[in-house]
Amino acid sequence: MLKYQEVAQQIETKIQTENLPQGTKLPSVSELVTEYQVSKNTILQTLKVLESRSVIYQVQGSGIFVRRRKRKGYITLLENQGFSGDLTYFDVVSKVINVTIVKATEEVANNLHCTLDDDVYLVKRVQSIRGQILCVEESYYKMSVVTFLNESIAEDSIFHYLEKALNIHIGFSDKYLSVHKTKGEISRYLELPEDSPVLLVEEIYYTNTGDPFDFAKNYYHYEHSQFFLQG
Amino acid sequence: MLKYQEVAQQIETKIQTENLPQGTKLPSVSELVTEYQVSKNTILQTLKVLESRSVIYQVQGSGIFVRRRKRKGYITLLENQGFSGDLTYFDVVSKVINVTIVKATEEVANNLHCTLDDDVYLVKRVQSIRGQILCVEESYYKMSVVTFLNESIAEDSIFHYLEKALNIHIGFSDKYLSVHKTKGEISRYLELPEDSPVLLVEEIYYTNTGDPFDFAKNYYHYEHSQFFLQG
Repeated sequence: MLKYQEVAQQIETKIQTENLPQGTKLPSVSELVTEYQVSKNTILQTLKVLESRSVIYQVQGSGIFVRRRKRKGYITLLENQGFSGDLTYFDVVSKVINVTIVKATEEVANNLHCTLDDDVYLVKRVQSIRGQILCVEESYYKMSVVTFLNESIAEDSIFHYLEKALNIHIGFSDKYLSVHKTKGEISRYLELPEDSPVLLVEEIYYTNTGDPFDFAKNYYHYEHSQFFLQG
Repeated sequence: MLKYQEVAQQIETKIQTENLPQGTKLPSVSELVTEYQVSKNTILQTLKVLESRSVIYQVQGSGIFVRRRKRKGYITLLENQGFSGDLTYFDVVSKVINVTIVKATEEVANNLHCTLDDDVYLVKRVQSIRGQILCVEESYYKMSVVTFLNESIAEDSIFHYLEKALNIHIGFSDKYLSVHKTKGEISRYLELPEDSPVLLVEEIYYTNTGDPFDFAKNYYHYEHSQFFLQG
């Protein structure tokens, strides 16, 4: 970890453990230089990171202030936002329905930049939080990148496996959100009556070289999920 | 506009007008230095801006590549993302229902950091795109910041008025998303049957000094709206 990232993490942890409210004034740049024994340049980079993570905001001529979300129980929509502690707050449990190899449909081929009828892994899971169904996930993995997958891997974090075992570097993602009425299989897995509201979050994940490897359709239970985004 | 912002805009416009597909390799840093006649440092700042706006991605040792959304007709969830051209693509028309002064409820006071029973402006509007109802907006403005508002102002962009006429500098925002069934007034304004799915986007806007001045509840028509987010 680079020095400025380390200092950023320390400041973030401090804000969290001391439970500093929004608007709390933090030490000045020169005070932070002294406190963390690093260069001014490092502190300026640290502050940029914390600002992009929505942990602080800076007011010109006035100082550096704590910024934090005020509502608990919301899922962060961008991974690089929020307090790391909030992630562990959500203890997500995955129940695997199945892991199969299927032919890419037109939709899958379009999103994964592969050929129609290419083989792809299809992972179906039900995700729960504190015993409540959070979402049904249908996730398609391109086999040229994700060379192996099975049910026992899918019971844990697939992304952790991709990074650690397959050495895949995840670069960025596109997300598309839309609201629908639930139908058929999705209703059954969400344990909701047909035509209930559902939030569909479609996600396309790319490697750090820009190759799309995962196209996921996540159907969220409208009574058990809410989302958060800082701009 | 600073030099690196100017160059960023030029590169973004070029990608857009030439309709360069995702993955197109752009000139190297040194080639960009020559092309735009600016310092290497300026180009590095330009690339940071373009990366944070999800216009490009950089692959170490390989180069700079075009990144762009692949689906049309989605509303960007973060203002600082996407191509500026996509904003004008959405020709949003506001129909004002009314602008009134009301007492802050507990919910409003919590979100605007004001006192219960403080007076606030309440703006109700129906927003449409290409003749289709997009959303119903209930927006509360704190009168200590937003000193004046009326119906004719609300027919256009309120934020434009706040910035230009009242000299309010908008700093950042929190957004909370949740899915519900429509009820009463909201159903009627959306022209949807009761219990239809609806996406509620609650937004809190802060000045650049961290003072919350606008708490908005936007109810989106599920058949006419879809959202986009790059991570």
